[in-house]
Amino acid sequence: MTLTPEAQAEIDALRAAPRPTLRAVSEGMEAHLYKAIPVLDHGFVRVVDYMGDDSAICQAARVSYGKGTKSVSNDEGLIRYLMRHWHSTPFEMCEVKLHVKLPVFVARQWIRHRTANVNEYSARYSILDREFYIPAPEALAAQSVVNNQGRGEALTGEEAARVLDWLKQDSTRAYDHYAEMISQDGQQGLARELARMNLPANIYTQWYWKVDLHNLFHFLRLRADAHAQYEIRVYADAICDVVKDWVPFAYKAFEDYRLGAVTMSAQMVECLRRMLNGEQVTEENCGMSKREWREFQGVLG
Amino acid sequence: MTLTPEAQAEIDALRAAPRPTLRAVSEGMEAHLYKAIPVLDHGFVRVVDYMGDDSAICQAARVSYGKGTKSVSNDEGLIRYLMRHWHSTPFEMCEVKLHVKLPVFVARQWIRHRTANVNEYSARYSILDREFYIPAPEALAAQSVVNNQGRGEALTGEEAARVLDWLKQDSTRAYDHYAEMISQDGQQGLARELARMNLPANIYTQWYWKVDLHNLFHFLRLRADAHAQYEIRVYADAICDVVKDWVPFAYKAFEDYRLGAVTMSAQMVECLRRMLNGEQVTEENCGMSKREWREFQGVLG
Amino acid sequence: MTLTPEAQAEIDALRAAPRPTLRAVSEGMEAHLYKAIPVLDHGFVRVVDYMGDDSAICQAARVSYGKGTKSVSNDEGLIRYLMRHWHSTPFEMCEVKLHVKLPVFVARQWIRHRTANVNEYSARYSILDREFYIPAPEALAAQSVVNNQGRGEALTGEEAARVLDWLKQDSTRAYDHYAEMISQDGQQGLARELARMNLPANIYTQWYWKVDLHNLFHFLRLRADAHAQYEIRVYADAICDVVKDWVPFAYKAFEDYRLGAVTMSAQMVECLRRMLNGEQVTEENCGMSKREWREFQGVLG
Amino acid sequence: MTLTPEAQAEIDALRAAPRPTLRAVSEGMEAHLYKAIPVLDHGFVRVVDYMGDDSAICQAARVSYGKGTKSVSNDEGLIRYLMRHWHSTPFEMCEVKLHVKLPVFVARQWIRHRTANVNEYSARYSILDREFYIPAPEALAAQSVVNNQGRGEALTGEEAARVLDWLKQDSTRAYDHYAEMISQDGQQGLARELARMNLPANIYTQWYWKVDLHNLFHFLRLRADAHAQYEIRVYADAICDVVKDWVPFAYKAFEDYRLGAVTMSAQMVECLRRMLNGEQVTEENCGMSKREWREFQGVLG
Repeated sequence: MTLTPEAQAEIDALRAAPRPTLRAVSEGMEAHLYKAIPVLDHGFVRVVDYMGDDSAICQAARVSYGKGTKSVSNDEGLIRYLMRHWHSTPFEMCEVKLHVKLPVFVARQWIRHRTANVNEYSARYSILDREFYIPAPEALAAQSVVNNQGRGEALTGEEAARVLDWLKQDSTRAYDHYAEMISQDGQQGLARELARMNLPANIYTQWYWKVDLHNLFHFLRLRADAHAQYEIRVYADAICDVVKDWVPFAYKAFEDYRLGAVTMSAQMVECLRRMLNGEQVTEENCGMSKREWREFQGVLG
Repeated sequence: MTLTPEAQAEIDALRAAPRPTLRAVSEGMEAHLYKAIPVLDHGFVRVVDYMGDDSAICQAARVSYGKGTKSVSNDEGLIRYLMRHWHSTPFEMCEVKLHVKLPVFVARQWIRHRTANVNEYSARYSILDREFYIPAPEALAAQSVVNNQGRGEALTGEEAARVLDWLKQDSTRAYDHYAEMISQDGQQGLARELARMNLPANIYTQWYWKVDLHNLFHFLRLRADAHAQYEIRVYADAICDVVKDWVPFAYKAFEDYRLGAVTMSAQMVECLRRMLNGEQVTEENCGMSKREWREFQGVLG
Repeated sequence: MTLTPEAQAEIDALRAAPRPTLRAVSEGMEAHLYKAIPVLDHGFVRVVDYMGDDSAICQAARVSYGKGTKSVSNDEGLIRYLMRHWHSTPFEMCEVKLHVKLPVFVARQWIRHRTANVNEYSARYSILDREFYIPAPEALAAQSVVNNQGRGEALTGEEAARVLDWLKQDSTRAYDHYAEMISQDGQQGLARELARMNLPANIYTQWYWKVDLHNLFHFLRLRADAHAQYEIRVYADAICDVVKDWVPFAYKAFEDYRLGAVTMSAQMVECLRRMLNGEQVTEENCGMSKREWREFQGVLG
Repeated sequence: MTLTPEAQAEIDALRAAPRPTLRAVSEGMEAHLYKAIPVLDHGFVRVVDYMGDDSAICQAARVSYGKGTKSVSNDEGLIRYLMRHWHSTPFEMCEVKLHVKLPVFVARQWIRHRTANVNEYSARYSILDREFYIPAPEALAAQSVVNNQGRGEALTGEEAARVLDWLKQDSTRAYDHYAEMISQDGQQGLARELARMNLPANIYTQWYWKVDLHNLFHFLRLRADAHAQYEIRVYADAICDVVKDWVPFAYKAFEDYRLGAVTMSAQMVECLRRMLNGEQVTEENCGMSKREWREFQGVLG
């Protein structure tokens, strides 16, 4: 990703002008504000605004639980308790606004998270830039043979070269025709809202995306997960790094009780008890399907 | 649009097997169930399920207003009252589930309506069909010269021919390469989740879309509007025809108080009073911007 | 709970008139339609309408996953897979509408679940009935000494009697004054929207509540839980019984992967592995807080 | 409303410690931060945090509309355009968090606005304060004789005195019994989650309420309206004054195109055109119901 000098100058100007505020301030987040974190070949994530910090979560929780909580807990303990016991509303009291540049096929997955506010670049109104996602060689993966929606090893050799050629050539040609169709040079020019339909799903779009911390954690749990498509996972990973600096206690609790946690079914818990009791539990006597048994084995390492 | 014989047989089978229910039944909607209403060149809308009817709206309203409403109003009067006075919750008591086949660039607009339930065909998991939207000649419009996000007259002659050729050729080539990239014939085959990125936004996708009547009306108000892009408006129009048969009183109220209604600003109302008072109101003395004055003139016909 | 003869006659009439429909029909749910299931002393839950069944969940999932899933899985297996892997959207394709009569303090907890449609009886518009929740002797519990938001043993003897007397007398007096304040007999009569403020939180209200199955499961997971207040838990339990008859496969999966499941933190999973490896793990060397260790012990039984 | 010295000291401390931030700052809002604006006899509204300002709305809109808008419009013009044409997403880019103290019957209306984040004081966990809303004499209104959910003139004389006495006495007695029931002095003490049911709906509760500007405007349009109950309208009015200082351009547009605007049905617009054409339009030949005609006359003044 290369920012235009104009864009970089705008960021520098915004970062050069601190102003006094009486609101909660997160130093970790101030360090990130406006800066573009590169993702994929032309994409980025950057924080445009935020509300609240770890203390804001506790402050809201203490409104709910009244005087009772004041003495008991330090902030970190309270936040861990809230996360562990699925108290979601205090985490909704923090909010973040991101500016994201991302390929359209990633945007199509991302937008399925409905509890967020979005302003996307409009290709009805404006002309899209000639920027396409072309996977790096190591990301050019084969279809998985075990998972219908997964990917396997990276393609190599001639096959990889052929795929890359097609992706590049088709994008280039599609954009050339897009540009010629909307051109008003010696012709009427096709409406932009129609011409955009010629563009492939690896073209870049951008949006402002605003979300509360609870719903952001939900997004991150699903998208920073090993089963998520690589191209959205790298965005989720970049956001994780930002959140860690913004609300360190909440992020640590999220790691321990969500990202790194495991949900065991009633059957799994039952098996576990038998095993800890010294019983020999096998696929045959576990009462689970083949697939669940395999998942259970995976959890136990 | 042509349904496969297999798809048509499935619809016929579903329509051949009525079963008794104690739920509210809308005869108008039963006549639509499962049938595909063609939209654009390969798209359709079809009703897959519904809940409630005009009476269900009134029933819910009467829970709120208690015994008071029982005598006063007939169903139609009550529904019109509710619509006129922005009582939205009774309309949320009806629900409809649609199966829609639509081009991706239309799906991208549609999904912005967040208060709905969606299951879309997954191109990570499955292979997309070779079906692309190619505008009919009369829909192949030029960019509007007055409205940045609108369209003007249809293109003609050589320019139209060239655009159609590109749209067809680029789609065909993109799909050919897509098919070759994922092929596992003598090669590993690119992961589907990656290969799809080569496909342009006029390819068709499909989804189940479930929404309550209040939010559906909101969708229709925006998308059956003259300012909506033609390609989504034809879907909205098709849905309007269905809703009219499903909840005729509610739909009529929607036409009168939303679709055909006009919102006048405080300034417009002020001008109106002056005009009805015999005063000569002009762009100069109206207190509105040039643009608002033009809109005001539009309303007054 | 006693229904008025008028209300019972209305239910009988509705149940006496089956009509043919082409929609999905759940026999288990048809048996419940309109019937009032008693909850607490004057409350009830009754199903007023529903959309979809187990098959509808699979049908939507198969739109997403395309031809791939058709051969593989039977409905039950597919539903269990979806639940286990947190695929929530197919469960959103079912919808249910309930008529609930419940005390106001229960309604205040319930309404916090935002993704639902609600029409509540309006005490601005109509006069509330003289019906109050008075706990049964075994539900008249003391404040828990270990849990700030829980309850302990039932009160007994004089203390119990005194509490019941106050609850009854204060309700009666509050309602007497409410009735006298709004009376227009020889006086103007206080506005209903004001008079209602004199009524305590154990008065009964009622509403229509419509929700999709995914969000209903979320509600049930929180409210059919041992930590939920008894007075809302009995409603959740009654709804569980209904859902079990409506979508038996989905409900069983919900029991196994949500209600009866356990989420283990990263630390707990680590300890588990050490234990299964034969290591002696204790509160001292477990790396968890006192409270987490206690919770961990609870899970392992 | 009187704040405790402790609460006032906390506010003073928070206001005494400005910190530098790189985020957008609204001077108008900084002046409000943390200060309690009195509402009713014991209630208040205070701003606890905010995100964004008028510029943030434009910034998001300009992402959508791209370079096109940069030259054309000044901020105020753009905001008015967005509001007039129902572009809601840019207004969602601002967020505010309020701390509100309010009677329970007001909270029950307020919470029906679902698109917001809420943390309410929990009476399961904590003990409620002895504070009740007792209407001022001029707010002690009679039931309206024309509107089932409205109120008329203020009560006077003996009737007013009797009502006030009941409200005060019943509140006092209910709280006395509440306090005695939960007391653990020489007895077990009833669980708080049960004891609270004895308290009437005029008791005060409090919460943190966080909402985006678009949804806040929706709330204000309904609750700052003449048809809203007085006791919630005064909160809406207080919030209007805050919003005016926070985002002055957006608030002015809201006043002109929402609060002061009028929606005319298709029939009303038709009549209007006939009237401006010199035709004599009467109740008989207008094609509207009696009620709509009356509303139409109201609009025309």
